[in-house]
Amino acid sequence: MTSAADLFATHRTRLDEAVQACASRGYHSAFDESPSPRVYGEEAAAQGKAAYDAWLGTDFPIRTPGSEGTVATERSPYGVDLAVRYPRVKDVDALMAAARAGMKGWRDAGPEGRTGVCLEILHRLHGRVFELANAVQHTSGQAFVMAFQAGGAHALDRALEAVAYAYTEMTRTPATARWEKPGKHPIAMEKTFTVVPRGVALVIGCNTFPTWNSWPGLFASLVTGNPVVVKPHPGAVLPLAITVQVCREVLEECGFAPDLLTLAAEDPADKLAATLAIRPEVRLIDFTGGNAFGDWLEDNARQAVVFTEKAGVNTVVVDSTDSFKAMCQNLAFSFALYSGQMCTAPQNVYLPTDGIETDEGHKSLAEVGAGIDAAFGKLLGDDARAVELLGGVVNGAVLDRLADAPGTGEVLVASREITHPSYADATVRTPTLIALDAAKDAEVYETECFGPVAYLIGTDGTDASIALFRDTVQRHGAMTASVYSTDGGVVEQMREAALDAGVALSENLLGAVFVNQSAAFSDFHGTGANPAANASYTDGAYVASRFRVIQSRRHV
Amino acid sequence: MTSAADLFATHRTRLDEAVQACASRGYHSAFDESPSPRVYGEEAAAQGKAAYDAWLGTDFPIRTPGSEGTVATERSPYGVDLAVRYPRVKDVDALMAAARAGMKGWRDAGPEGRTGVCLEILHRLHGRVFELANAVQHTSGQAFVMAFQAGGAHALDRALEAVAYAYTEMTRTPATARWEKPGKHPIAMEKTFTVVPRGVALVIGCNTFPTWNSWPGLFASLVTGNPVVVKPHPGAVLPLAITVQVCREVLEECGFAPDLLTLAAEDPADKLAATLAIRPEVRLIDFTGGNAFGDWLEDNARQAVVFTEKAGVNTVVVDSTDSFKAMCQNLAFSFALYSGQMCTAPQNVYLPTDGIETDEGHKSLAEVGAGIDAAFGKLLGDDARAVELLGGVVNGAVLDRLADAPGTGEVLVASREITHPSYADATVRTPTLIALDAAKDAEVYETECFGPVAYLIGTDGTDASIALFRDTVQRHGAMTASVYSTDGGVVEQMREAALDAGVALSENLLGAVFVNQSAAFSDFHGTGANPAANASYTDGAYVASRFRVIQSRRHV
Repeated sequence: MTSAADLFATHRTRLDEAVQACASRGYHSAFDESPSPRVYGEEAAAQGKAAYDAWLGTDFPIRTPGSEGTVATERSPYGVDLAVRYPRVKDVDALMAAARAGMKGWRDAGPEGRTGVCLEILHRLHGRVFELANAVQHTSGQAFVMAFQAGGAHALDRALEAVAYAYTEMTRTPATARWEKPGKHPIAMEKTFTVVPRGVALVIGCNTFPTWNSWPGLFASLVTGNPVVVKPHPGAVLPLAITVQVCREVLEECGFAPDLLTLAAEDPADKLAATLAIRPEVRLIDFTGGNAFGDWLEDNARQAVVFTEKAGVNTVVVDSTDSFKAMCQNLAFSFALYSGQMCTAPQNVYLPTDGIETDEGHKSLAEVGAGIDAAFGKLLGDDARAVELLGGVVNGAVLDRLADAPGTGEVLVASREITHPSYADATVRTPTLIALDAAKDAEVYETECFGPVAYLIGTDGTDASIALFRDTVQRHGAMTASVYSTDGGVVEQMREAALDAGVALSENLLGAVFVNQSAAFSDFHGTGANPAANASYTDGAYVASRFRVIQSRRHV
Repeated sequence: MTSAADLFATHRTRLDEAVQACASRGYHSAFDESPSPRVYGEEAAAQGKAAYDAWLGTDFPIRTPGSEGTVATERSPYGVDLAVRYPRVKDVDALMAAARAGMKGWRDAGPEGRTGVCLEILHRLHGRVFELANAVQHTSGQAFVMAFQAGGAHALDRALEAVAYAYTEMTRTPATARWEKPGKHPIAMEKTFTVVPRGVALVIGCNTFPTWNSWPGLFASLVTGNPVVVKPHPGAVLPLAITVQVCREVLEECGFAPDLLTLAAEDPADKLAATLAIRPEVRLIDFTGGNAFGDWLEDNARQAVVFTEKAGVNTVVVDSTDSFKAMCQNLAFSFALYSGQMCTAPQNVYLPTDGIETDEGHKSLAEVGAGIDAAFGKLLGDDARAVELLGGVVNGAVLDRLADAPGTGEVLVASREITHPSYADATVRTPTLIALDAAKDAEVYETECFGPVAYLIGTDGTDASIALFRDTVQRHGAMTASVYSTDGGVVEQMREAALDAGVALSENLLGAVFVNQSAAFSDFHGTGANPAANASYTDGAYVASRFRVIQSRRHV
């Protein structure tokens, strides 16, 4: 049997570096983001692809207590049915009982033991990163390199970040303390402090980022002692099935109950997430997805602490720029990356109807649209290159919204269908850019239009843009915001507005950093301070309420 | 104008020591608990009493926006109407607007500035500790020394503890960071991280511990940037009025809006707490009190993070002892202290119906009762000494419960009326001890009977006692638990049960430490892991969600 303590020792340096990075919030990465053979070896890519391919059409070998029969619900946006069959949950009582059965042993492993096990899990997931990348690609539709990075290396970094925060939080209180009260009759006591779990944790995955958005909550809950039930999105099960498989394997090797991690797959008609979410055993819920179910969870899963990331309206305020081309290119990339199917993708661009000052002279709103179109041309003109940025359209709802978009305003850039050079049945689209009027079209731009749709919205001027930004985000939420201005005063106003609205701000991004990307250990993802999300990856608040400390004391 | 930065420098050592104490959880106190003239000077006690007396029958000089007219609602358990008049809140819109008006300035003061101001407030409250002790005594009914300690020095320590935790939490993320991603084309960014408040914080005070139970939440919310509306219990306004007065005075001296702290007094019929609690501006609520309103808050104040301390059934498991007299004395003290009107006072004593083994031989349940009665005799036999331990009965509801108690079981020790040597109209009672049967009387002992009522509950043996303890606490909650046993195995079983039930455990207390006392910086008060409270004073979870961090980033 592998000892959890040994695993802690093995991975101690990785932990210490992560803890240090969280405190400094400088650059840090524990898992190389380059899928290059120079980093991962000549065989890794092919082996990972083969491992992924081997799952197709099979029964995924995982045991889920309370399951009966199987479901196969995944179809790749690249046009292939995965046809992987997973145990279908039927008996939730049995599932809950099995999840809880291992709690005591896991609790008694203590913060270091649990941290060691979780770090070993991350290490083994990293060993399967190419397989995971293929699984993420063919469930989310992300292009391969993005799936490798966002769904693999960066997701591992985010998971490690959550483990590091939770470890720090659990060990803020010593395991034992000696209390000696001075005085004429001094009193001495010995005190014991034990980290105890809250109960069963439920992680509800999403279709677009099955690993990146699920792992922080999964590992934050697991490392703090809670059994975790993973309810994947029916369209993106495989990446989480692999995750649960690895978790169970390591737990079992270390003598813990594998049912501390269970995969709860379903037919979409089962509405399993809603059933699980209100179970009294479930005390923690992590959810990424739409407002309707997120709001429902917050309203109904009252027995649990609920962490939600929902919809928002990500906003860019454009006032002026000294690098018009670079600005357009940066914006175009952000719109195009994974076809705008990111909770962090910008949607609303507020700029004066009169246009803006740039290094290329005054640009009207239409000219800004043309600038972005030209940038799209460079980025997306070649289909073979374009698909590596756009990826595939994750599902029909995105296509429906894209089809409706031209009716909402003046089309500055139309969406274009792209033929994937390798996958004939892939659904790939370029973004559309629509011109709107701030005063008239609030109904359109105050709603998230998830997918490759962005709006250039004419305002009465930059002051009006900033006021509108503050208002939109306060009322409808946002995961990201950015500003372009050569005027320090405007940037300062935007910082103030971002503090008021409770959203992170990127300023004058012109190079290889994009507003939709957040770097683990340095950038917080979400703030918890606006309606788009009630929590942040990863800060103290994200981990502190996932466990409790129970003390005992005695005289010595 | 006093500078917040200067105040931070002034009080830096006090902060550092408190932060260190929170991490070690050894003994620490920043405010001397002895009201002796040797500590506080010859004049302090008389001056404090005079300051308190001067308030009686006056208009308390405090401005509350949105108030109209005054209310006077306090009557001392020692028999005097305080007749202090406070502004009565009428216009909640105006109150909320005033509270929010100063938020930006307070946010911009930053963690250090706000911490400096809060530490100065604690310093000045300490300067008025005798006045506060009198105010606590004559609103809660606590005897003077207890009012000085629990309501003064210890409350200051708990407030300091909350400030220290919040300071640590706010400064976990640096104010700025430099992010440099290596590579062929290195990327450098500068990032700014700003702590922002959640919104208006509402503190709902209780009658028995107006300062001790209110200050941790008040200072945790204030130091993290939130304006605080203090809604005192109508029976215990003065201690919090003085608190708010000091807060406003220091805020104003430092150039901040005094309305960041407001006193929201009411006539009990106004139901002001319920009105305030569901205001959209209110994002944090701290409440100590009964289950009915606590549950209502959790169910209805959905826009806020709600920290509640409600009712519980504090339990003692008696298995055996090698110091029968000391055990009885320790228990008797815990029952008698402030007439059992503490959320931490033990109520249910589970012991075998057959009795227990002791250093004085086998003792039947009745003999344990007699042992406690004998200890009461020593502690409470002399009226003049007894009142210094018992204090006064806080209100009629406690008397009603005491009157009903004899009907619930066999009276082992009857309650006795005591004549206060200094206050002829004081209401003082000794505790009653009732024998119950574990199997038959669940309805009685599974409910909190707040006040001087304790039960000796006969079980089938220690295993049954421990099982019953686990079950009672899981279902009905507890703030404290304790065990008496000479058998290490039994103590170990109780530790396990306490971890399962989520309650702090005191083992074999025989001397000058009592189960109802928790020491700031070392003992957690409540756990958040059972129904009695959803939070703990003070840990990371108590402070982490009171603020958010908003970042901005830019290339350098």
